[in-house]
Amino acid sequence: MTRLPERPDPAPITSPRSDRVRRIAALSGRSARRRTGLLRVDGPQAVRSLLSERAADARELFLTETADAAHPELRELAERAGIRPRTVAEEIIRAMARSDDADHGADDVATPQGAIAVAARPADDWSTALGALPDSGPLTLLVLAEVRDPGNVGTLVRAADAAGADLVVLARASADPWGPKAIRASAGSAFHLPVVTGAPLPELLEALAARGIAVAATSGHADADLFELELPGRLAWVMGNEARGVDEETLAAADLAVRIPLAGRAESLNVATAATVCLFETLRQRHGGIRTGAAGSATP
Amino acid sequence: MTRLPERPDPAPITSPRSDRVRRIAALSGRSARRRTGLLRVDGPQAVRSLLSERAADARELFLTETADAAHPELRELAERAGIRPRTVAEEIIRAMARSDDADHGADDVATPQGAIAVAARPADDWSTALGALPDSGPLTLLVLAEVRDPGNVGTLVRAADAAGADLVVLARASADPWGPKAIRASAGSAFHLPVVTGAPLPELLEALAARGIAVAATSGHADADLFELELPGRLAWVMGNEARGVDEETLAAADLAVRIPLAGRAESLNVATAATVCLFETLRQRHGGIRTGAAGSATP
Repeated sequence: MTRLPERPDPAPITSPRSDRVRRIAALSGRSARRRTGLLRVDGPQAVRSLLSERAADARELFLTETADAAHPELRELAERAGIRPRTVAEEIIRAMARSDDADHGADDVATPQGAIAVAARPADDWSTALGALPDSGPLTLLVLAEVRDPGNVGTLVRAADAAGADLVVLARASADPWGPKAIRASAGSAFHLPVVTGAPLPELLEALAARGIAVAATSGHADADLFELELPGRLAWVMGNEARGVDEETLAAADLAVRIPLAGRAESLNVATAATVCLFETLRQRHGGIRTGAAGSATP
Repeated sequence: MTRLPERPDPAPITSPRSDRVRRIAALSGRSARRRTGLLRVDGPQAVRSLLSERAADARELFLTETADAAHPELRELAERAGIRPRTVAEEIIRAMARSDDADHGADDVATPQGAIAVAARPADDWSTALGALPDSGPLTLLVLAEVRDPGNVGTLVRAADAAGADLVVLARASADPWGPKAIRASAGSAFHLPVVTGAPLPELLEALAARGIAVAATSGHADADLFELELPGRLAWVMGNEARGVDEETLAAADLAVRIPLAGRAESLNVATAATVCLFETLRQRHGGIRTGAAGSATP
Protein backbone atom coordinates (compact mmCIF):
# COMPACT_ATOMS: atom_id res chain seq x y z
CA MET A 1 0.00 0.00 0.00
CA THR A 2 1.39 3.43 -0.89
CA ARG A 3 0.52 6.24 1.41
CA LEU A 4 1.66 9.82 1.70
CA PRO A 5 4.61 10.05 4.00
CA GLU A 6 3.96 11.52 7.43
CA ARG A 7 5.36 15.01 7.72
CA PRO A 8 7.25 14.44 10.93
CA ASP A 9 7.60 17.10 13.51
CA PRO A 10 10.32 17.74 14.56
CA ALA A 11 12.08 14.89 12.66
CA PRO A 12 11.36 11.34 11.54
CA ILE A 13 11.98 8.67 14.15
CA THR A 14 13.94 5.96 12.42
CA SER A 15 16.26 4.57 15.06
CA PRO A 16 15.09 2.66 18.14
CA ARG A 17 18.22 3.99 19.83
CA SER A 18 17.49 7.66 19.24
CA ASP A 19 17.29 10.10 22.15
CA ARG A 20 13.63 10.69 21.45
CA VAL A 21 12.80 7.00 21.79
CA ARG A 22 14.95 6.73 24.90
CA ARG A 23 13.17 9.64 26.56
CA ILE A 24 9.81 7.97 25.99
CA ALA A 25 11.13 4.61 27.22
CA ALA A 26 12.44 6.36 30.33
CA LEU A 27 8.84 7.25 31.29
CA SER A 28 8.60 3.70 32.62
CA GLY A 29 10.49 5.14 35.60
CA ARG A 30 8.82 7.10 38.36
CA SER A 31 11.65 9.60 38.62
CA ALA A 32 11.52 10.47 34.90
CA ARG A 33 7.77 10.95 35.18
CA ARG A 34 8.22 13.28 38.15
CA ARG A 35 11.00 15.21 36.46
CA THR A 36 9.20 15.70 33.16
CA GLY A 37 5.60 15.84 34.38
CA LEU A 38 4.79 13.36 31.60
CA LEU A 39 3.56 9.80 31.47
CA ARG A 40 3.43 7.09 28.82
CA VAL A 41 0.30 5.21 27.81
CA ASP A 42 0.79 1.81 26.11
CA GLY A 43 -1.76 -0.05 24.07
CA PRO A 44 -4.86 0.93 22.09
CA GLN A 45 -7.37 0.53 24.93
CA ALA A 46 -5.61 2.82 27.40
CA VAL A 47 -4.69 5.29 24.62
CA ARG A 48 -8.36 5.46 23.61
CA SER A 49 -9.39 6.24 27.19
CA LEU A 50 -6.75 8.96 27.43
CA LEU A 51 -7.87 10.57 24.18
CA SER A 52 -11.58 10.40 24.98
CA GLU A 53 -11.46 11.31 28.66
CA ARG A 54 -8.39 13.51 29.08
CA ALA A 55 -7.81 14.89 25.60
CA ALA A 56 -6.33 18.10 27.00
CA ASP A 57 -3.55 16.12 28.70
CA ALA A 58 -2.50 14.21 25.55
CA ARG A 59 0.77 15.38 23.96
CA GLU A 60 1.89 12.84 21.34
CA LEU A 61 0.57 9.71 19.67
CA PHE A 62 2.63 7.04 17.92
CA LEU A 63 1.01 4.29 15.87
CA THR A 64 2.20 1.45 13.71
CA GLU A 65 0.46 1.22 10.35
CA THR A 66 -1.24 -1.95 11.55
CA ALA A 67 -2.59 -0.33 14.71
CA ASP A 68 -3.63 2.74 12.74
CA ALA A 69 -5.67 0.58 10.39
CA ALA A 70 -7.11 -1.58 13.19
CA HIS A 71 -8.09 1.36 15.42
CA PRO A 72 -9.11 4.27 13.15
CA GLU A 73 -10.82 5.99 16.09
CA LEU A 74 -7.43 6.71 17.69
CA ARG A 75 -6.35 8.97 14.83
CA GLU A 76 -9.74 10.66 14.86
CA LEU A 77 -9.69 11.30 18.59
CA ALA A 78 -6.09 12.53 18.42
CA GLU A 79 -6.84 14.98 15.64
CA ARG A 80 -9.83 16.26 17.57
CA ALA A 81 -7.41 16.87 20.45
CA GLY A 82 -5.11 18.80 18.11
CA ILE A 83 -2.48 16.09 17.93
CA ARG A 84 -1.03 14.80 14.73
CA PRO A 85 -0.48 11.04 15.11
CA ARG A 86 2.87 9.77 13.88
CA THR A 87 3.26 6.48 12.11
CA VAL A 88 6.35 4.60 13.21
CA ALA A 89 7.78 1.13 12.71
CA GLU A 90 6.88 -1.68 15.07
CA GLU A 91 10.46 -1.76 16.37
CA ILE A 92 10.22 1.91 17.37
CA ILE A 93 7.05 1.26 19.38
CA ARG A 94 8.71 -1.71 21.05
CA ALA A 95 11.77 0.34 21.91
CA MET A 96 9.58 3.08 23.39
CA ALA A 97 8.00 0.51 25.69
CA ARG A 98 11.27 -1.14 26.68
CA SER A 99 12.69 -0.47 30.11
CA ASP A 100 14.81 -1.89 32.87
CA ASP A 101 12.80 -0.05 35.45
CA ALA A 102 11.72 -2.00 38.49
CA ASP A 103 8.02 -1.24 38.09
CA HIS A 104 8.11 -2.65 34.61
CA GLY A 105 7.57 -6.40 34.20
CA ALA A 106 8.99 -8.37 31.32
CA ASP A 107 5.55 -8.85 29.79
CA ASP A 108 5.35 -5.12 29.12
CA VAL A 109 8.03 -5.25 26.48
CA ALA A 110 6.09 -7.34 24.04
CA THR A 111 2.68 -5.75 24.12
CA PRO A 112 2.22 -2.04 23.42
CA GLN A 113 0.18 -3.42 20.48
CA GLY A 114 1.29 -0.72 18.12
CA ALA A 115 0.01 2.32 20.01
CA ILE A 116 1.79 4.60 22.47
CA ALA A 117 0.80 8.04 23.71
CA VAL A 118 2.62 10.59 25.83
CA ALA A 119 0.51 12.75 28.12
CA ALA A 120 0.85 15.27 30.90
CA ARG A 121 0.68 13.61 34.29
CA PRO A 122 -2.74 14.60 35.69
CA ALA A 123 -2.93 16.93 38.66
CA ASP A 124 -3.31 14.42 41.45
CA ASP A 125 -3.23 16.31 44.71
CA TRP A 126 -5.24 14.27 47.20
CA SER A 127 -6.52 17.10 49.36
CA THR A 128 -7.77 19.13 46.41
CA ALA A 129 -9.60 16.05 45.10
CA LEU A 130 -11.11 15.35 48.50
CA GLY A 131 -12.24 18.97 48.76
CA ALA A 132 -13.94 18.73 45.37
CA LEU A 133 -16.25 15.88 46.45
CA PRO A 134 -19.89 16.77 47.13
CA ASP A 135 -20.74 17.63 50.74
CA SER A 136 -23.68 15.29 50.95
CA GLY A 137 -25.09 12.22 49.28
CA PRO A 138 -23.52 8.78 48.79
CA LEU A 139 -19.84 8.45 47.98
CA THR A 140 -17.54 5.47 47.49
CA LEU A 141 -13.78 5.87 47.79
CA LEU A 142 -10.99 3.36 47.52
CA VAL A 143 -7.83 4.04 49.54
CA LEU A 144 -4.72 1.97 48.80
CA ALA A 145 -2.11 1.93 51.55
CA GLU A 146 1.18 0.38 50.46
CA VAL A 147 -0.14 -1.60 47.53
CA ARG A 148 3.22 -2.18 45.88
CA ASP A 149 2.56 -3.99 42.63
CA PRO A 150 1.74 -1.67 39.69
CA GLY A 151 -0.43 -4.38 38.12
CA ASN A 152 -2.48 -4.62 41.32
CA VAL A 153 -2.83 -0.84 41.50
CA GLY A 154 -4.15 -0.74 37.92
CA THR A 155 -6.50 -3.67 38.48
CA LEU A 156 -7.84 -1.96 41.62
CA VAL A 157 -8.40 1.31 39.75
CA ARG A 158 -10.31 -0.60 37.08
CA ALA A 159 -12.47 -2.41 39.66
CA ALA A 160 -13.15 0.89 41.46
CA ASP A 161 -14.24 2.48 38.20
CA ALA A 162 -16.52 -0.46 37.32
CA ALA A 163 -18.12 -0.36 40.76
CA GLY A 164 -18.78 3.36 40.39
CA ALA A 165 -16.27 4.66 42.93
CA ASP A 166 -15.88 8.45 43.06
CA LEU A 167 -12.17 8.62 43.89
CA VAL A 168 -9.11 6.40 44.32
CA VAL A 169 -6.50 7.64 46.81
CA LEU A 170 -3.00 6.15 46.93
CA ALA A 171 -1.54 6.54 50.38
CA ARG A 172 1.93 5.85 51.68
CA ALA A 173 4.40 3.90 49.59
CA SER A 174 1.99 2.54 47.00
CA ALA A 175 3.02 1.92 43.39
CA ASP A 176 2.58 4.91 41.10
CA PRO A 177 -0.74 4.68 39.24
CA TRP A 178 0.85 6.70 36.40
CA GLY A 179 3.38 4.07 35.40
CA PRO A 180 2.69 2.34 32.06
CA LYS A 181 2.04 -1.04 33.68
CA ALA A 182 -0.51 0.34 36.16
CA ILE A 183 -2.20 2.37 33.43
CA ARG A 184 -2.44 -0.67 31.20
CA ALA A 185 -3.80 -2.90 33.98
CA SER A 186 -6.42 -0.22 34.62
CA ALA A 187 -7.58 -0.69 30.99
CA GLY A 188 -7.94 3.07 30.75
CA SER A 189 -9.87 3.48 34.00
CA ALA A 190 -7.01 5.63 35.35
CA PHE A 191 -8.43 8.32 33.05
CA HIS A 192 -12.08 7.69 33.97
CA LEU A 193 -12.18 8.71 37.60
CA PRO A 194 -9.96 10.88 39.78
CA VAL A 195 -6.89 8.98 40.99
CA VAL A 196 -4.72 10.87 43.46
CA THR A 197 -1.44 10.09 45.17
CA GLY A 198 0.87 10.94 48.03
CA ALA A 199 -1.65 11.03 50.87
CA PRO A 200 -0.14 10.57 54.34
CA LEU A 201 -2.50 8.12 56.04
CA PRO A 202 -3.22 9.94 59.34
CA GLU A 203 -4.00 13.24 57.59
CA LEU A 204 -6.14 11.40 55.05
CA LEU A 205 -8.17 9.66 57.76
CA GLU A 206 -8.75 13.01 59.47
CA ALA A 207 -9.79 14.66 56.23
CA LEU A 208 -12.21 11.82 55.47
CA ALA A 209 -13.79 12.17 58.92
CA ALA A 210 -14.13 15.92 58.37
CA ARG A 211 -16.00 15.23 55.12
CA GLY A 212 -18.35 12.79 56.86
CA ILE A 213 -16.89 9.78 55.05
CA ALA A 214 -16.72 6.58 57.10
CA VAL A 215 -13.54 4.49 56.80
CA ALA A 216 -13.88 0.71 56.47
CA ALA A 217 -11.04 -1.80 56.50
CA THR A 218 -11.12 -5.58 56.11
CA SER A 219 -9.85 -7.95 58.75
CA GLY A 220 -10.16 -11.69 59.23
CA HIS A 221 -10.83 -11.11 62.91
CA ALA A 222 -13.58 -8.52 62.63
CA ASP A 223 -17.01 -9.32 64.03
CA ALA A 224 -18.95 -7.48 61.35
CA ASP A 225 -19.74 -9.71 58.37
CA LEU A 226 -19.71 -7.84 55.06
CA PHE A 227 -22.85 -9.60 53.89
CA GLU A 228 -24.80 -8.76 57.05
CA LEU A 229 -23.86 -5.10 57.35
CA GLU A 230 -25.77 -2.10 56.12
CA LEU A 231 -22.92 -0.07 54.68
CA PRO A 232 -22.70 3.69 55.33
CA GLY A 233 -23.71 5.96 52.47
CA ARG A 234 -20.39 7.83 52.43
CA LEU A 235 -17.72 5.18 52.58
CA ALA A 236 -13.98 4.80 51.97
CA TRP A 237 -12.60 1.25 51.72
CA VAL A 238 -8.97 1.01 52.81
CA MET A 239 -6.94 -1.83 51.31
CA GLY A 240 -3.44 -2.62 52.55
CA ASN A 241 -0.19 -4.12 51.43
CA GLU A 242 -0.21 -7.33 49.36
CA ALA A 243 1.68 -9.36 51.97
CA ARG A 244 0.58 -7.80 55.24
CA GLY A 245 -2.90 -6.39 54.64
CA VAL A 246 -4.05 -3.29 56.49
CA ASP A 247 -1.80 -2.41 59.43
CA GLU A 248 -3.12 -2.57 63.00
CA GLU A 249 -2.97 1.17 63.54
CA THR A 250 -5.12 1.93 60.51
CA LEU A 251 -7.50 -0.86 61.43
CA ALA A 252 -7.88 0.63 64.92
CA ALA A 253 -8.48 4.09 63.47
CA ALA A 254 -11.13 2.84 60.99
CA ASP A 255 -14.80 3.41 61.74
CA LEU A 256 -15.62 -0.08 60.57
CA ALA A 257 -13.67 -3.34 60.61
CA VAL A 258 -15.31 -5.78 58.24
CA ARG A 259 -14.82 -9.49 57.70
CA ILE A 260 -15.26 -10.88 54.19
CA PRO A 261 -16.85 -14.29 54.73
CA LEU A 262 -14.74 -17.15 53.39
CA ALA A 263 -16.42 -20.44 52.70
CA GLY A 264 -13.60 -22.70 51.52
CA ARG A 265 -10.14 -23.41 52.86
CA ALA A 266 -8.40 -20.32 51.48
CA GLU A 267 -6.69 -18.45 54.30
CA SER A 268 -7.10 -15.05 52.72
CA LEU A 269 -7.93 -13.17 49.55
CA ASN A 270 -5.52 -11.25 47.40
CA VAL A 271 -5.93 -7.51 47.59
CA ALA A 272 -7.69 -7.15 44.22
CA THR A 273 -10.18 -9.89 45.07
CA ALA A 274 -10.88 -8.41 48.52
CA ALA A 275 -11.41 -4.92 47.08
CA THR A 276 -13.68 -6.30 44.35
CA VAL A 277 -15.90 -8.07 46.86
CA CYS A 278 -16.17 -4.95 49.05
CA LEU A 279 -16.71 -2.49 46.19
CA PHE A 280 -19.33 -4.58 44.44
CA GLU A 281 -21.19 -5.30 47.69
CA THR A 282 -21.28 -1.52 48.16
CA LEU A 283 -22.62 -1.14 44.64
CA ARG A 284 -25.17 -3.89 45.22
CA GLN A 285 -26.49 -2.19 48.35
CA ARG A 286 -26.84 1.09 46.43
CA HIS A 287 -28.28 -0.65 43.40
CA GLY A 288 -31.01 1.26 41.65
CA GLY A 289 -29.91 4.35 39.82
CA ILE A 290 -26.88 2.80 38.16
CA ARG A 291 -25.98 2.62 34.53
CA THR A 292 -26.87 -0.60 32.80
CA GLY A 293 -24.29 -0.48 30.04
CA ALA A 294 -21.82 -3.00 28.74
CA ALA A 295 -20.30 -5.50 31.14
CA GLY A 296 -18.79 -8.90 30.91
CA SER A 297 -15.61 -10.77 31.54
CA ALA A 298 -13.72 -9.38 28.56
CA THR A 299 -10.17 -8.00 28.37
CA PRO A 300 -7.23 -9.10 30.47
CA MET B 1 25.91 -21.54 63.09
CA THR B 2 27.21 -25.10 62.87
CA ARG B 3 24.69 -27.77 62.10
CA LEU B 4 24.98 -31.41 61.27
CA PRO B 5 25.26 -31.87 57.54
CA GLU B 6 22.18 -33.20 55.77
CA ARG B 7 22.66 -36.79 54.76
CA PRO B 8 21.74 -36.30 51.15
CA ASP B 9 19.90 -38.87 49.19
CA PRO B 10 20.99 -39.75 46.55
CA ALA B 11 23.77 -37.12 46.50
CA PRO B 12 24.34 -33.56 47.66
CA ILE B 13 23.15 -30.87 45.30
CA THR B 14 25.97 -28.42 44.99
CA SER B 15 25.78 -27.15 41.42
CA PRO B 16 22.95 -25.06 40.04
CA ARG B 17 23.81 -26.61 36.67
CA SER B 18 23.40 -30.22 37.77
CA ASP B 19 20.97 -32.53 35.99
CA ARG B 20 18.88 -32.81 39.11
CA VAL B 21 18.38 -29.04 39.31
CA ARG B 22 17.67 -28.86 35.59
CA ARG B 23 15.02 -31.56 35.83
CA ILE B 24 13.23 -29.60 38.56
CA ALA B 25 13.54 -26.34 36.62
CA ALA B 26 12.07 -28.12 33.59
CA LEU B 27 8.83 -28.65 35.52
CA SER B 28 8.00 -25.05 34.62
CA GLY B 29 7.06 -26.53 31.26
CA ARG B 30 3.78 -28.26 30.58
CA SER B 31 5.35 -30.99 28.50
CA ALA B 32 7.84 -31.97 31.22
CA ARG B 33 5.00 -32.11 33.73
CA ARG B 34 3.00 -34.38 31.43
CA ARG B 35 5.97 -36.60 30.69
CA THR B 36 7.03 -37.03 34.31
CA GLY B 37 3.66 -36.82 36.04
CA LEU B 38 5.29 -34.37 38.44
CA LEU B 39 4.82 -30.71 39.28
CA ARG B 40 6.84 -28.09 41.11
CA VAL B 41 5.56 -25.98 43.98
CA ASP B 42 7.41 -22.70 44.67
CA GLY B 43 7.26 -20.68 47.87
CA PRO B 44 6.43 -21.46 51.50
CA GLN B 45 2.69 -20.75 51.29
CA ALA B 46 1.96 -23.10 48.40
CA VAL B 47 4.37 -25.72 49.78
CA ARG B 48 2.54 -25.61 53.12
CA SER B 49 -0.80 -26.19 51.39
CA LEU B 50 0.63 -29.12 49.44
CA LEU B 51 2.04 -30.74 52.58
CA SER B 52 -1.09 -30.21 54.65
CA GLU B 53 -3.73 -31.00 52.04
CA ARG B 54 -2.08 -33.44 49.63
CA ALA B 55 0.70 -34.99 51.71
CA ALA B 56 0.46 -38.27 49.80
CA ASP B 57 1.34 -36.48 46.55
CA ALA B 58 4.47 -34.78 47.92
CA ARG B 59 7.78 -36.26 46.73
CA GLU B 60 10.63 -33.91 47.67
CA LEU B 61 11.19 -30.74 49.65
CA PHE B 62 14.10 -28.32 49.29
CA LEU B 63 14.66 -25.51 51.77
CA THR B 64 17.29 -22.86 52.30
CA GLU B 65 18.50 -22.58 55.90
CA THR B 66 16.73 -19.24 56.15
CA ALA B 67 13.40 -20.63 54.97
CA ASP B 68 13.83 -23.67 57.20
CA ALA B 69 14.27 -21.40 60.23
CA ALA B 70 11.45 -19.05 59.22
CA HIS B 71 8.94 -21.83 58.48
CA PRO B 72 9.61 -24.71 60.91
CA GLU B 73 6.17 -26.18 60.15
CA LEU B 74 7.32 -27.12 56.63
CA ARG B 75 9.93 -29.56 57.96
CA GLU B 76 7.42 -30.95 60.43
CA LEU B 77 4.73 -31.46 57.80
CA ALA B 78 7.24 -33.02 55.41
CA GLU B 79 8.50 -35.48 57.97
CA ARG B 80 4.96 -36.44 58.84
CA ALA B 81 4.51 -37.15 55.12
CA GLY B 82 7.62 -39.36 55.16
CA ILE B 83 9.80 -36.88 53.29
CA ARG B 84 13.21 -35.80 54.44
CA PRO B 85 13.63 -32.12 53.62
CA ARG B 86 16.93 -31.17 52.05
CA THR B 87 18.75 -28.00 52.89
CA VAL B 88 20.25 -26.36 49.82
CA ALA B 89 21.89 -23.06 49.00
CA GLU B 90 19.81 -20.11 47.87
CA GLU B 91 21.39 -20.30 44.40
CA ILE B 92 20.18 -23.89 44.04
CA ILE B 93 16.61 -22.89 44.87
CA ARG B 94 16.81 -20.03 42.39
CA ALA B 95 18.16 -22.33 39.69
CA MET B 96 15.34 -24.81 40.34
CA ALA B 97 12.81 -22.03 39.75
CA ARG B 98 14.50 -20.66 36.65
CA SER B 99 12.98 -21.34 33.27
CA ASP B 100 12.60 -20.05 29.76
CA ASP B 101 9.20 -21.60 29.49
CA ALA B 102 6.41 -19.50 28.05
CA ASP B 103 4.07 -19.96 31.00
CA HIS B 104 6.72 -18.69 33.33
CA GLY B 105 6.98 -14.95 33.85
CA ALA B 106 10.18 -13.19 34.77
CA ASP B 107 8.89 -12.47 38.27
CA ASP B 108 8.94 -16.18 39.04
CA VAL B 109 12.67 -16.34 38.94
CA ALA B 110 13.23 -14.10 41.91
CA THR B 111 10.74 -15.39 44.40
CA PRO B 112 10.63 -19.06 45.37
CA GLN B 113 11.43 -17.59 48.84
CA GLY B 114 13.67 -20.48 49.80
CA ALA B 115 11.18 -23.33 49.52
CA ILE B 116 10.47 -25.67 46.62
CA ALA B 117 8.61 -28.96 46.60
CA VAL B 118 8.13 -31.59 43.92
CA ALA B 119 4.84 -33.50 43.91
CA ALA B 120 2.89 -35.96 41.83
CA ARG B 121 0.47 -34.18 39.51
CA PRO B 122 -2.99 -34.81 41.01
CA ALA B 123 -5.45 -37.02 39.18
CA ASP B 124 -7.50 -34.40 37.38
CA ASP B 125 -9.94 -36.17 35.12
CA TRP B 126 -12.91 -33.88 34.72
CA SER B 127 -15.61 -36.51 34.23
CA THR B 128 -14.53 -38.53 37.27
CA ALA B 129 -14.62 -35.35 39.37
CA LEU B 130 -18.03 -34.41 38.04
CA GLY B 131 -19.32 -37.90 38.81
CA ALA B 132 -18.05 -37.63 42.39
CA LEU B 133 -20.18 -34.55 43.16
CA PRO B 134 -23.28 -35.11 45.33
CA ASP B 135 -26.52 -35.79 43.45
CA SER B 136 -28.51 -33.18 45.31
CA GLY B 137 -28.02 -30.06 47.36
CA PRO B 138 -26.30 -26.79 46.46
CA LEU B 139 -23.13 -26.80 44.38
CA THR B 140 -20.94 -24.06 42.97
CA LEU B 141 -18.57 -24.76 40.08
CA LEU B 142 -16.22 -22.51 38.18
CA VAL B 143 -15.53 -23.38 34.55
CA LEU B 144 -12.66 -21.62 32.76
CA ALA B 145 -12.82 -21.71 28.98
CA GLU B 146 -9.60 -20.48 27.33
CA VAL B 147 -8.27 -18.49 30.26
CA ARG B 148 -4.71 -18.25 28.98
CA ASP B 149 -2.69 -16.52 31.66
CA PRO B 150 -1.36 -18.86 34.40
CA GLY B 151 -1.51 -16.03 36.95
CA ASN B 152 -5.19 -15.50 36.16
CA VAL B 153 -5.90 -19.24 36.42
CA GLY B 154 -4.25 -19.34 39.86
CA THR B 155 -6.05 -16.21 41.05
CA LEU B 156 -9.36 -17.68 39.87
CA VAL B 157 -8.70 -20.97 41.69
CA ARG B 158 -7.96 -18.98 44.86
CA ALA B 159 -11.15 -16.90 44.53
CA ALA B 160 -13.20 -20.07 43.87
CA ASP B 161 -11.75 -21.67 47.00
CA ALA B 162 -12.46 -18.58 49.13
CA ALA B 163 -16.04 -18.42 47.87
CA GLY B 164 -16.55 -22.10 48.74
CA ALA B 165 -16.72 -23.51 45.23
CA ASP B 166 -16.87 -27.30 44.98
CA LEU B 167 -14.91 -27.77 41.77
CA VAL B 168 -12.90 -25.81 39.20
CA VAL B 169 -12.96 -27.17 35.65
CA LEU B 170 -10.50 -25.99 33.01
CA ALA B 171 -11.97 -26.38 29.57
CA ARG B 172 -10.42 -25.95 26.16
CA ALA B 173 -7.04 -24.30 25.80
CA SER B 174 -6.76 -22.81 29.26
CA ALA B 175 -3.41 -22.42 31.01
CA ASP B 176 -2.33 -25.43 33.04
CA PRO B 177 -3.30 -24.99 36.71
CA TRP B 178 -0.34 -27.24 37.64
CA GLY B 179 2.36 -24.86 36.43
CA PRO B 180 4.40 -23.19 39.20
CA LYS B 181 3.09 -19.72 38.40
CA ALA B 182 -0.57 -20.78 38.54
CA ILE B 183 0.04 -22.76 41.74
CA ARG B 184 1.71 -19.79 43.36
CA ALA B 185 -1.02 -17.36 42.28
CA SER B 186 -3.52 -19.78 43.81
CA ALA B 187 -1.70 -19.33 47.17
CA GLY B 188 -2.10 -23.07 47.73
CA SER B 189 -5.79 -23.18 46.85
CA ALA B 190 -4.95 -25.53 43.95
CA PHE B 191 -4.53 -28.16 46.69
CA HIS B 192 -7.68 -27.19 48.62
CA LEU B 193 -10.41 -28.06 46.19
CA PRO B 194 -10.63 -30.35 43.16
CA VAL B 195 -9.19 -28.68 40.05
CA VAL B 196 -9.60 -30.66 36.84
CA THR B 197 -8.48 -30.12 33.27
CA GLY B 198 -8.99 -31.07 29.66
CA ALA B 199 -12.77 -30.83 29.48
CA PRO B 200 -14.17 -30.38 25.95
CA LEU B 201 -16.81 -27.69 26.35
CA PRO B 202 -19.81 -29.32 24.61
CA GLU B 203 -19.39 -32.60 26.53
CA LEU B 204 -18.90 -30.67 29.75
CA LEU B 205 -22.11 -28.67 29.24
CA GLU B 206 -24.02 -31.89 28.59
CA ALA B 207 -22.57 -33.56 31.66
CA LEU B 208 -23.48 -30.56 33.81
CA ALA B 209 -27.06 -30.66 32.54
CA ALA B 210 -27.22 -34.37 33.32
CA ARG B 211 -26.15 -33.65 36.91
CA GLY B 212 -28.79 -30.94 37.28
CA ILE B 213 -26.24 -28.14 37.37
CA ALA B 214 -27.31 -24.88 35.69
CA VAL B 215 -24.72 -23.09 33.56
CA ALA B 216 -24.38 -19.31 33.89
CA ALA B 217 -22.22 -17.05 31.75
CA THR B 218 -21.67 -13.30 31.94
CA SER B 219 -22.47 -10.93 29.09
CA GLY B 220 -22.69 -7.16 28.86
CA HIS B 221 -25.82 -7.56 26.78
CA ALA B 222 -27.77 -9.91 29.03
CA ASP B 223 -31.09 -8.78 30.47
CA ALA B 224 -30.69 -10.52 33.80
CA ASP B 225 -28.93 -8.34 36.36
CA LEU B 226 -26.69 -10.34 38.73
CA PHE B 227 -27.90 -8.37 41.72
CA GLU B 228 -31.56 -8.91 40.95
CA LEU B 229 -31.45 -12.62 40.19
CA GLU B 230 -32.17 -15.49 42.53
CA LEU B 231 -29.34 -17.82 41.58
CA PRO B 232 -29.97 -21.56 41.09
CA GLY B 233 -28.81 -23.83 43.92
CA ARG B 234 -26.66 -25.98 41.63
CA LEU B 235 -24.67 -23.57 39.52
CA ALA B 236 -21.60 -23.54 37.25
CA TRP B 237 -20.17 -20.13 36.31
CA VAL B 238 -18.40 -20.15 32.94
CA MET B 239 -15.66 -17.56 32.45
CA GLY B 240 -14.05 -17.01 29.06
CA ASN B 241 -10.86 -15.84 27.47
CA GLU B 242 -9.14 -12.71 28.79
CA ALA B 243 -9.51 -10.78 25.55
CA ARG B 244 -12.73 -12.11 24.11
CA GLY B 245 -14.84 -13.25 27.08
CA VAL B 246 -17.24 -16.15 26.70
CA ASP B 247 -17.84 -17.12 23.07
CA GLU B 248 -21.29 -16.73 21.51
CA GLU B 249 -21.89 -20.44 21.17
CA THR B 250 -21.29 -21.13 24.86
CA LEU B 251 -23.37 -18.11 25.80
CA ALA B 252 -26.24 -19.43 23.70
CA ALA B 253 -25.92 -22.87 25.27
CA ALA B 254 -25.88 -21.50 28.84
CA ASP B 255 -29.03 -21.72 30.96
CA LEU B 256 -28.46 -18.22 32.24
CA ALA B 257 -26.84 -15.13 30.69
CA VAL B 258 -26.09 -12.65 33.43
CA ARG B 259 -25.04 -9.01 33.33
CA ILE B 260 -22.74 -7.71 36.04
CA PRO B 261 -23.93 -4.17 36.69
CA LEU B 262 -21.27 -1.55 36.02
CA ALA B 263 -21.66 1.86 37.59
CA GLY B 264 -18.65 3.82 36.33
CA ARG B 265 -17.14 4.28 32.90
CA ALA B 266 -15.23 1.01 32.74
CA GLU B 267 -16.19 -0.89 29.60
CA SER B 268 -15.66 -4.31 31.11
CA LEU B 269 -14.13 -6.24 33.98
CA ASN B 270 -11.08 -8.42 33.85
CA VAL B 271 -11.82 -12.11 34.13
CA ALA B 272 -10.67 -12.44 37.75
CA THR B 273 -12.78 -9.47 38.83
CA ALA B 274 -15.85 -10.76 36.97
CA ALA B 275 -15.49 -14.23 38.49
CA THR B 276 -15.01 -12.77 41.96
CA VAL B 277 -18.19 -10.72 41.72
CA CYS B 278 -20.20 -13.74 40.50
CA LEU B 279 -18.75 -16.25 42.98
CA PHE B 280 -19.16 -13.99 46.01
CA GLU B 281 -22.70 -12.99 45.03
CA THR B 282 -23.43 -16.75 44.90
CA LEU B 283 -21.87 -17.14 48.34
CA ARG B 284 -23.83 -14.15 49.66
CA GLN B 285 -27.12 -15.61 48.46
CA ARG B 286 -26.26 -18.92 50.20
CA HIS B 287 -24.97 -17.17 53.28
CA GLY B 288 -25.76 -18.91 56.54
CA GLY B 289 -23.93 -22.13 57.15
CA ILE B 290 -20.53 -20.88 56.07
CA ARG B 291 -17.28 -20.92 57.95
CA THR B 292 -16.37 -17.70 59.71
CA GLY B 293 -12.61 -18.15 59.75
CA ALA B 294 -9.76 -15.92 58.74
CA ALA B 295 -10.23 -13.45 55.91
CA GLY B 296 -8.68 -10.20 54.86
CA SER B 297 -6.77 -8.61 52.11
CA ALA B 298 -3.46 -10.27 52.86
CA THR B 299 -0.98 -11.95 50.49
CA PRO B 300 -0.32 -10.96 46.87
